[in-house]
Amino acid sequence: IWCLACQEKKQALLYVSDAQYNRNIFFDTSPQAVRLYLLYNHWFMQMLVYVFIIINLALALFEDPAVVPLPIWATSTIEIICLSAFTVRMVHYAKVIPRDKFWKDPKNICIIVILSFIDLTIYGALKATGYFAIRWSRVLRPLLLVNVTEGRQLRRAFRSIRNALPQISYVFFLFMFSVLVFSLMALKLFGKRGLLTIDGSPYFTNYLDIVFDLYVLVTTANSPDVMMPAYNYSVFFTVFFILYIVINTYTFMSFFLAVVYNNYKKYLKEEVRQLVKARRFKMCRAFSLLQETRGEGGEPVVTQAKWNHLVKLVKPNISIAHRELLWSVLDDQNKGHIGKIAFVQLADLLSIQVITVKSQPHPIQICFPSVYNSSVSRFIRYMVRTRVFVYVYDLIILVNAVFIGLDEENPVVSNAEWGFLALYMLEIILKLYATEPRAFFARHHFWNWFDTIIIVSALFGTIINSALKHCKCYTSRQILDIVFILRVVRLIRLVDSIKRFRAIINTLIKIGPTILTFGQLIVVVYYIFAMVGMELFKGKVQFFEPNSTSPDQEYCGNPLLKGTTFAKLNYCKNNFNNVVSSFIVLLELTVVNQCGFTAVTHVSARIFFVLFHIVVVIIIINIFVAFILEAFLVEYTFDKSDLQTSLEKKIEELEDGVDTGLVDAMESIDNELGPSETGKQKPSLMFKIASRRSRTVDGLLQRMFETDLRHEDFNEEEEPENINFSNPVFDSV
Amino acid sequence: IWCLACQEKKQALLYVSDAQYNRNIFFDTSPQAVRLYLLYNHWFMQMLVYVFIIINLALALFEDPAVVPLPIWATSTIEIICLSAFTVRMVHYAKVIPRDKFWKDPKNICIIVILSFIDLTIYGALKATGYFAIRWSRVLRPLLLVNVTEGRQLRRAFRSIRNALPQISYVFFLFMFSVLVFSLMALKLFGKRGLLTIDGSPYFTNYLDIVFDLYVLVTTANSPDVMMPAYNYSVFFTVFFILYIVINTYTFMSFFLAVVYNNYKKYLKEEVRQLVKARRFKMCRAFSLLQETRGEGGEPVVTQAKWNHLVKLVKPNISIAHRELLWSVLDDQNKGHIGKIAFVQLADLLSIQVITVKSQPHPIQICFPSVYNSSVSRFIRYMVRTRVFVYVYDLIILVNAVFIGLDEENPVVSNAEWGFLALYMLEIILKLYATEPRAFFARHHFWNWFDTIIIVSALFGTIINSALKHCKCYTSRQILDIVFILRVVRLIRLVDSIKRFRAIINTLIKIGPTILTFGQLIVVVYYIFAMVGMELFKGKVQFFEPNSTSPDQEYCGNPLLKGTTFAKLNYCKNNFNNVVSSFIVLLELTVVNQCGFTAVTHVSARIFFVLFHIVVVIIIINIFVAFILEAFLVEYTFDKSDLQTSLEKKIEELEDGVDTGLVDAMESIDNELGPSETGKQKPSLMFKIASRRSRTVDGLLQRMFETDLRHEDFNEEEEPENINFSNPVFDSV
Repeated sequence: IWCLACQEKKQALLYVSDAQYNRNIFFDTSPQAVRLYLLYNHWFMQMLVYVFIIINLALALFEDPAVVPLPIWATSTIEIICLSAFTVRMVHYAKVIPRDKFWKDPKNICIIVILSFIDLTIYGALKATGYFAIRWSRVLRPLLLVNVTEGRQLRRAFRSIRNALPQISYVFFLFMFSVLVFSLMALKLFGKRGLLTIDGSPYFTNYLDIVFDLYVLVTTANSPDVMMPAYNYSVFFTVFFILYIVINTYTFMSFFLAVVYNNYKKYLKEEVRQLVKARRFKMCRAFSLLQETRGEGGEPVVTQAKWNHLVKLVKPNISIAHRELLWSVLDDQNKGHIGKIAFVQLADLLSIQVITVKSQPHPIQICFPSVYNSSVSRFIRYMVRTRVFVYVYDLIILVNAVFIGLDEENPVVSNAEWGFLALYMLEIILKLYATEPRAFFARHHFWNWFDTIIIVSALFGTIINSALKHCKCYTSRQILDIVFILRVVRLIRLVDSIKRFRAIINTLIKIGPTILTFGQLIVVVYYIFAMVGMELFKGKVQFFEPNSTSPDQEYCGNPLLKGTTFAKLNYCKNNFNNVVSSFIVLLELTVVNQCGFTAVTHVSARIFFVLFHIVVVIIIINIFVAFILEAFLVEYTFDKSDLQTSLEKKIEELEDGVDTGLVDAMESIDNELGPSETGKQKPSLMFKIASRRSRTVDGLLQRMFETDLRHEDFNEEEEPENINFSNPVFDSV
Repeated sequence: IWCLACQEKKQALLYVSDAQYNRNIFFDTSPQAVRLYLLYNHWFMQMLVYVFIIINLALALFEDPAVVPLPIWATSTIEIICLSAFTVRMVHYAKVIPRDKFWKDPKNICIIVILSFIDLTIYGALKATGYFAIRWSRVLRPLLLVNVTEGRQLRRAFRSIRNALPQISYVFFLFMFSVLVFSLMALKLFGKRGLLTIDGSPYFTNYLDIVFDLYVLVTTANSPDVMMPAYNYSVFFTVFFILYIVINTYTFMSFFLAVVYNNYKKYLKEEVRQLVKARRFKMCRAFSLLQETRGEGGEPVVTQAKWNHLVKLVKPNISIAHRELLWSVLDDQNKGHIGKIAFVQLADLLSIQVITVKSQPHPIQICFPSVYNSSVSRFIRYMVRTRVFVYVYDLIILVNAVFIGLDEENPVVSNAEWGFLALYMLEIILKLYATEPRAFFARHHFWNWFDTIIIVSALFGTIINSALKHCKCYTSRQILDIVFILRVVRLIRLVDSIKRFRAIINTLIKIGPTILTFGQLIVVVYYIFAMVGMELFKGKVQFFEPNSTSPDQEYCGNPLLKGTTFAKLNYCKNNFNNVVSSFIVLLELTVVNQCGFTAVTHVSARIFFVLFHIVVVIIIINIFVAFILEAFLVEYTFDKSDLQTSLEKKIEELEDGVDTGLVDAMESIDNELGPSETGKQKPSLMFKIASRRSRTVDGLLQRMFETDLRHEDFNEEEEPENINFSNPVFDSV
């Protein structure tokens, strides 16, 4: 019976942590499967999977065309190891999941692994026999990031894009129609006039060339060059280009943003709604495992003991005080047990970051109480806490900025650096003197950590650098670079002093984790395009070191580039000769779509660049902008969730000493760390909600749509779709 | 007493039309002022003002630096006439407005007029005595567009921008701080490495140059050129640029959009709320002028007779049927009089476009009934109405598109054009045969009008062109151009056949009027920058005709430009030598901020370009994007206003013949146009709501915020600000 209870607890733990991390896996409930599932979700196993994925992706660095060439057998062996690891993971997954559910999720991974194996053998065989071969399965590698169990957010983003695609494509086709009609008009207007472009070729005489040129004009890359011949001929022709820019570059591009914004948001909202439902369902399952019925015909409840045990299992490093606080929020009437509705809130409650602040005496106060409490010491501590101290250091930073800008070969400037370093060290020491060190370095004090790390690193860097300089044995430009960067980064501290700037920065930081999901999205798309680009363009353009004397240098080693702007502007290093260069070229293409490459291959290579522009700029960048827009609006318009408010209320009550029973209980539990200060009125234990931000992307998303979701949370029936987010199908004329 | 009633009616008319057009003028209620105010609001007077403004603005074409030079006395005389016209308009305004209210609105116009006079005399005097003089008051001219009584929407836009400015500026300062810090880092990293740019100058050695280069990188104009020297030196330095692009180009620019979107929307909403309140207030005033009390202690009401008279005054060309319809909507219970709440809706009701469709017999049917009703004729009419007819003509258009793309010097192609024209003419004739001509050319049938005009013009153009070609006396390229344009424009018809495309196009058209306000905004900003730019840069860059043999041609007539990319790319026509060129250069700067101009003057001229970028790209273009975004979202998410729904319900009732009394009444009034068809069940009179679109910008705005405004419409007390639009002040951390 004990083992059965233990088994139930484990299962409940799994349900709760699945709910907390929004995992959607219907694991088998047999004891063995539960044990394996616990292992499957272990952070080490998850990390291992990502390590293998990264190794697998990084193989592109060593495969032909390589940054650091390795023999084929070496890269192949590494890839086989990675693929085996994924296979093992899949087998593990199969053991956890009921047989009939297995193929739902991981079939894509299986396909990728199998295809990679096939490609690897074909490639090996062809290469061994000396034939030409392409490693086409490399395109599939980044898809592992999407399909792996942990890539939930990325998968959600892709799914939302896929769902929004039909709507986007209607606008896109209309946009292309507009480009085609404008091109036809350009052909008729300019084709017969015998105009010449700047490099002497005929202007606007080939229809497909015109389409391409006008498409590029949408990306603003060839403005105003594409217009100049017509403008030089007659000022009236600018009307054509102005119309084109207003309609296609501005109106249609804004329209794309609007469509992407609206659709992406709509589908994402639907996803989040499903997520919240699944979470609720899982918490109910956990409840039904732990419930017991109080009295005759009473509601099923969960006792505090069982709850405590569960929370300890779910979050092993939770402080007792924090746990007590959470319980007191759920069990508001101090009954000692909670019902289903309260229990279900646990997953949300655990995701609110609560910081336990213990006001402890300063170590110096304990060791040398007379010194620490002397009037001089008290004056110093008072001064450090005043605004004047902050202003003085802001001024120092400003002066420092000027000194950084000056030439550091001037001895006065380089010596002044020591002075600044000393001043900054003094600041940290003074602050450490005035504040209890553990409070100073608390996890949520971002700027304290920032300061200390930057200053200490800069100190070490400067010492190492001057040591190297003095011994004259070796001058490392790299160390000097790092020292310079650290010096400049120090200036960012200034932002923290200006209240409004700090707020903007905080908003940016809050959006941060979300941007990371986009980072992954971008990596997946970039990787695929880089692989294709490398196969298409590798070796077509060569880069020569600036001091090279090769005559090929002038045209990047490709006679086709003789006299082109590409070669003239020395863009030779913008090539697809290895994966790093490819990524950089793709970044440049994202910013400004310049395609000198079409000169070195067939004109049809333009399709590659247009496709990249459509995928990255029109879709992904627009989603990025839409997301920042939405996140920004949410950041300033959201109501706090009910749960967070009740948690805050409880914390306030604690501070006001209203609920002293609870405080005492916590004190007695937590006072192994030292006697509480007797002279103080306030409890020495204080809670703080870390920030209103949601740490996870799911949290942010949930909050985005919270006002819509809250009311249907406990509503089991499907409500009709909210009219505010109804699909903008283009047939409601 | 009659005159008093007449006076009251006039006053009521003024209140209603002020409410309808959202005029906010507190006119004097004396008989003379009311009469003058009626004149003041006459469309001819308003048009006259705009004609004078346009003439005044167009003077820039003839003043030095001129497109078409005119002597100073001529331009000065025209300007004096314009200024006098504005003065007269002001005097007129002063007569209408109570003395104490006068200075509120038009003080800006007075200042502009006075300053212009002063500038004109100083300029004249200085020029006469041969001194150097600047016409600085030209900068003020476009401000007339804003400050004139009719420029309400523009004024509102400017006010919203001004109010949003503080919030935008916080983000802007943080953005500039980021640029400055990155520049400092770039100086330290690259300054000492002795790198060279593509034109051989030292790379990243001057701090201010770096700041400018990195600012331009945000506009993506110098990407990837600015990165190439560092990238060629070491691939690791790209990390610096990638970070810069991600933070500044993408994140901050999206952030700007978010801040602009949020703030602009917020302030605009406040403006619209004020507008709705003012409108309600004015309608109440009108009501109190016309009201009479029914019975003892009854509610004050307005009788149908008075109401009819008022509507006739407000909208002289309203059809009697339409008026009856409106009355039946307001007086739902057929009481013969309406109360205050119903009366107040009149202004909104009048702004809903209702089309009266009268089903009349075809003229041919009247003249030759036997021919028209023959089986062949009926078959033709049936065929024209089928989908097959549309598909056949879509196919013809596609084939036509291919023919347009072919070389028109081929005789087959040029003769085919006659065939196509004949086919298109046939289509129009067939359609006219199948549909009653007045219905075919009804005002809301945009595509019918479009087709007919395009085809008839193309026919005339082609005839004139071939006549000129045959007589060989004169070949006009211009006529050929127009013919070509008309041919290509014909293809747009294809869009109408595809349902989803048509819907997108309709959305675009609906946003149209709003974009016009932005057009004015852009003109004002462009004009100011053009005036300043002309004074700064006129004559610095010269354009030589392509066949000129002047040696100066290579460097645009300015030795400072020798060897620069500006001259190499033949940008000489991008100059500030006259107002047309200036506008084109400014458009190019809007698209891509390239500033070759700084080479010809002092480096500080860069300030001009940076300022232009901040004003136009960061603020105005973002507002444009924000507006399209919002309009798009509104287009698909709005609920119809209650009023429109009740109007639609009433129209439906009419069609179902429920309210036959009303139909009969209308029939008897309107049947002067011919006997109604007796064989038909449906009433021959039909109403249609033109479209859900609001014709005016105010209407669109009002609908945008309708859901928020509707509930407080009748609430006289100020409600607390809706939390969803609360100001995102950056201090809530």
